[in-house]
Amino acid sequence: MCLFCKIAKKEIPSKILFEEEDLLAFHDINPMAPIHVLVIPKQHIVGLGEAVAENAEVLGKLLLASRRVSEETGLVQSGFRVVVNNGTHAGQSVFHLHVHVLGGRPLAWPPG
Amino acid sequence: MCLFCKIAKKEIPSKILFEEEDLLAFHDINPMAPIHVLVIPKQHIVGLGEAVAENAEVLGKLLLASRRVSEETGLVQSGFRVVVNNGTHAGQSVFHLHVHVLGGRPLAWPPG
Repeated sequence: MCLFCKIAKKEIPSKILFEEEDLLAFHDINPMAPIHVLVIPKQHIVGLGEAVAENAEVLGKLLLASRRVSEETGLVQSGFRVVVNNGTHAGQSVFHLHVHVLGGRPLAWPPG
Repeated sequence: MCLFCKIAKKEIPSKILFEEEDLLAFHDINPMAPIHVLVIPKQHIVGLGEAVAENAEVLGKLLLASRRVSEETGLVQSGFRVVVNNGTHAGQSVFHLHVHVLGGRPLAWPPG
């Protein structure tokens, strides 16, 4: 079972921000900003490059959850950036889809 | 009407990659990588911070469209990064939700 499947099942502890039926939001262990939360589907989806039409609803919920992250971490006024890495050039390191939500400081452009 | 609503209605020209019923994918006018495509919903949604539960399906389709961008631009092997900016700290510049899809070079971490 992959690392994020274990985190989703709470077999490995994480600093959970909130949980919904289909997803879990927890603080990144190696934060790149004052707020850096990961949102993962409980279902094992490797990445966006492997997502299929039946995943549309849970993908939409992941993006809606980024709004909830901003509300629960005080980023509504200052804003936030959502990032999803897919494959080598993007530096994807865990092959279970995860949405990064970053905020709490100005974020430069380009995004990497 | 906002800039991206006009692009979605083709009242302002853009370099369109593909169109679906609910969304349009076009090349960013100021690319930050060899491939830099924007995917927008035709419906006017200000940003993720304003998205509501009824938007879940179209949000999911935007993420699925990033996979299609990677397929149509030759990024399947090398990978790609998806970025959505929301508000001031993220540098959101057009207040119509848009998903950046970047690839064709290694993308650094942190993402801005």
